[in-house]
Amino acid sequence: MAEAAQPVTMDTIVSLCRRRGFVFPSSEIYGGLGSTYDYGHYGVLTKNNIRSLWFRAMVQERDDIVALDSAIILNPSVWEASGHVAGFTDPLVDCRTCKLRFRADQLEQANCGRKPSKRPGETPDCDLTEPRQFNLMFETHVGALRDESSAAYLRPETAQGIFINFKNVSQLARRKPPFGIAQVGKSFRNEITPGNFLFRVREFEQMEMEFFVPPADATRWYEYWVEARLGWYRNLGLRESNLRVREHGEDERSHYSSATSDIEYRYPIGWQELEGVANRGEFDLTQHTQHSGTKLEWIDPDGNRYTPHVVEPAVSIERIFVALLCDAYHEEVVGDRERVVLRLHPKVAPVKAAILPLVPRDEGMATRARALYEDLRRHHVVEHDDSGQIGRRYRRQDEIGTPWAFTVDEQTLEDETVTVRDRDSLAQERLPIAGVRAWLDDALERDWSSPQSD
Amino acid sequence: MAEAAQPVTMDTIVSLCRRRGFVFPSSEIYGGLGSTYDYGHYGVLTKNNIRSLWFRAMVQERDDIVALDSAIILNPSVWEASGHVAGFTDPLVDCRTCKLRFRADQLEQANCGRKPSKRPGETPDCDLTEPRQFNLMFETHVGALRDESSAAYLRPETAQGIFINFKNVSQLARRKPPFGIAQVGKSFRNEITPGNFLFRVREFEQMEMEFFVPPADATRWYEYWVEARLGWYRNLGLRESNLRVREHGEDERSHYSSATSDIEYRYPIGWQELEGVANRGEFDLTQHTQHSGTKLEWIDPDGNRYTPHVVEPAVSIERIFVALLCDAYHEEVVGDRERVVLRLHPKVAPVKAAILPLVPRDEGMATRARALYEDLRRHHVVEHDDSGQIGRRYRRQDEIGTPWAFTVDEQTLEDETVTVRDRDSLAQERLPIAGVRAWLDDALERDWSSPQSD
Repeated sequence: MAEAAQPVTMDTIVSLCRRRGFVFPSSEIYGGLGSTYDYGHYGVLTKNNIRSLWFRAMVQERDDIVALDSAIILNPSVWEASGHVAGFTDPLVDCRTCKLRFRADQLEQANCGRKPSKRPGETPDCDLTEPRQFNLMFETHVGALRDESSAAYLRPETAQGIFINFKNVSQLARRKPPFGIAQVGKSFRNEITPGNFLFRVREFEQMEMEFFVPPADATRWYEYWVEARLGWYRNLGLRESNLRVREHGEDERSHYSSATSDIEYRYPIGWQELEGVANRGEFDLTQHTQHSGTKLEWIDPDGNRYTPHVVEPAVSIERIFVALLCDAYHEEVVGDRERVVLRLHPKVAPVKAAILPLVPRDEGMATRARALYEDLRRHHVVEHDDSGQIGRRYRRQDEIGTPWAFTVDEQTLEDETVTVRDRDSLAQERLPIAGVRAWLDDALERDWSSPQSD
Repeated sequence: MAEAAQPVTMDTIVSLCRRRGFVFPSSEIYGGLGSTYDYGHYGVLTKNNIRSLWFRAMVQERDDIVALDSAIILNPSVWEASGHVAGFTDPLVDCRTCKLRFRADQLEQANCGRKPSKRPGETPDCDLTEPRQFNLMFETHVGALRDESSAAYLRPETAQGIFINFKNVSQLARRKPPFGIAQVGKSFRNEITPGNFLFRVREFEQMEMEFFVPPADATRWYEYWVEARLGWYRNLGLRESNLRVREHGEDERSHYSSATSDIEYRYPIGWQELEGVANRGEFDLTQHTQHSGTKLEWIDPDGNRYTPHVVEPAVSIERIFVALLCDAYHEEVVGDRERVVLRLHPKVAPVKAAILPLVPRDEGMATRARALYEDLRRHHVVEHDDSGQIGRRYRRQDEIGTPWAFTVDEQTLEDETVTVRDRDSLAQERLPIAGVRAWLDDALERDWSSPQSD
């Protein structure tokens, strides 16, 4: 069934995100700003989890990778050396009739400004210019002058900030190849045709790791990182049938890359890149050595010098975010009610547990629920909800993917136990209230296998 | 002694940061980019801790504040409404002789381009223009056109992204005033005279919270937040003698603010703003209501409408980072050796513990140290160090502020215990190796009072 379409549509995900405050169109009260989004409470919490799980796997749990956080506005020479000033471009055509601008390589996905049912160039009065190269870097000016000498760019990728710090880090971190430098941060691309919700946006948060290796080992490490990153997505619970690895053909690859694979996810818009893993060779360190005059190389204890090769797994938080929501989204009938449930991995879920007094106006229940909430929130992101019928409160939590709900009820007042309700199985069991914190700690450490059927 | 100068100089901190890889000058191999910095491994870890402690105190442990993450490039109308397009300016003067540009209000801190020992205007050939207003927002262009219609700005503060989402959030989060919206993210200001290390930089990471309250309660909440934020810094271990609250005079305040206090820290450059707490009144919501046509107000259950007032605690991670390092830095003599030690709060320290095999070539010690490290790193950021004499390894950890070191030694092979060395007291005690993880968990939860003398 691997080729069947994703059962959930992008519109369904957009609508859930809007309704529950994961993601809003940005600047909405001012009419928005094309394909820009603001994240609400649950969106922030989910992104925080994705970021910290990546950081944990890529930095904290390894002793061969260190972290870096370079500036967004770097010295513009960096982008000359990297090739972005000359080559980070899309070909654009203008229509002299309707005045719209299109990507020359994506005319088949665009609509004519006069007859939107037609493609540009398909109607007699379309008058398209020859393609011109348009640079995707956002340009700005640093300092009080506004001329060429002050021009600078918002970084279009975090990777170059890593390469230019190779020497600093390799000396100070007392690391020798193979070792990696990992970075998380915003990058910016002035996309002419952004779209598909968070899938292609102008500002996005990258998580990139550059792994520096002896040239002879580059292929082996490239294969290692494709597998390692694929395993990471499996561990997050993404369904096997929605994941695949696709190796780029020679015509797709950057000229400096000897091999690139996309870990693809089956989004509602089809199979698309989730994460890219590239064998970038020695291109970047060589370019910066030539442009800066600083030798970016490795000298081994025997005095042999070489320029390490680089293997790069690179992904954006946004694409993981969308993949996780699509994969987790389920509509189902429970008894005589429908529910929407996000079967998110507990480590990804924005809220780990809800604490619910069954009868909020009962002072005994209210006090105990509140005390339990105030204890748990010191350790985990949890919610206290005392508003509305219990069934409605459960469904609110299901919809944001909260794995567990602890309910304080009549019996709590007698024996100091609470029920714990499982989001996926809907099973309920009783626990001593004093044991809830340890139970939750353990539950979050347990191996989790997705309860979703393929 | 409150007015005595900070004993540590900014140069000392800059040097430590460079030497141990907390912070590098950015784009160093290309000659840098004035007052821009990249963070190395320990810098990233420290910033991550600051960010997550703030988020925990401001969002996770409260039920009256929710999180938001708005875009960096917003619809430019936002900055018209906020007053930044018209008024977020510094006055500049040019010297027609030396061609340099200065802040008109800071001439007494500037140097003449011809005679650097003199101030601009102090030498006969200085020929200064009248001051002109220079906007501090970085401008760029979104989309393929590069004209006025496509102009946009990098946000100079995160706060406006919160105000424009007030309606979305207040509806969806089912919150009523008093409630707050918190945001962490990069902001950008094209400072003409950046400097003093991380103290004034062109891109910085803000942590802002806008607290929306009934107008009659604004003063009370303003006072509450000044105290709450001051308490947060005390809990991080900043010395009382290096902290003070300074209320702005009427001439210093923004025209819309009825009260502003700076929580000041005694940096090596003197008392300076660490965090600002402002009573912004109804200015922002009113401005956006007028400019957007969307009513940003609160309607209480009785149908009464009002525009909430806003109390804002705002700080940058960079200023906290510098304050924490300055406060923690100590040089001392232990026995016959000098050591540099960062007495950082354990929750702020980039590395929580070091695991050290006393004799790395002893296989029994090496195996046990490695196993302990691999267990601990699943839960905390820890380091394994088997390189060099044990004293040198301790001093490396002292210098980055690691609170505890667990050493595997001869006795470990006999009784499966390790020593734990305390960074501050230098006391050593023995623990069963099997109990180290629980010991470290507990130690990180213990109340910590700074061992530093005032």
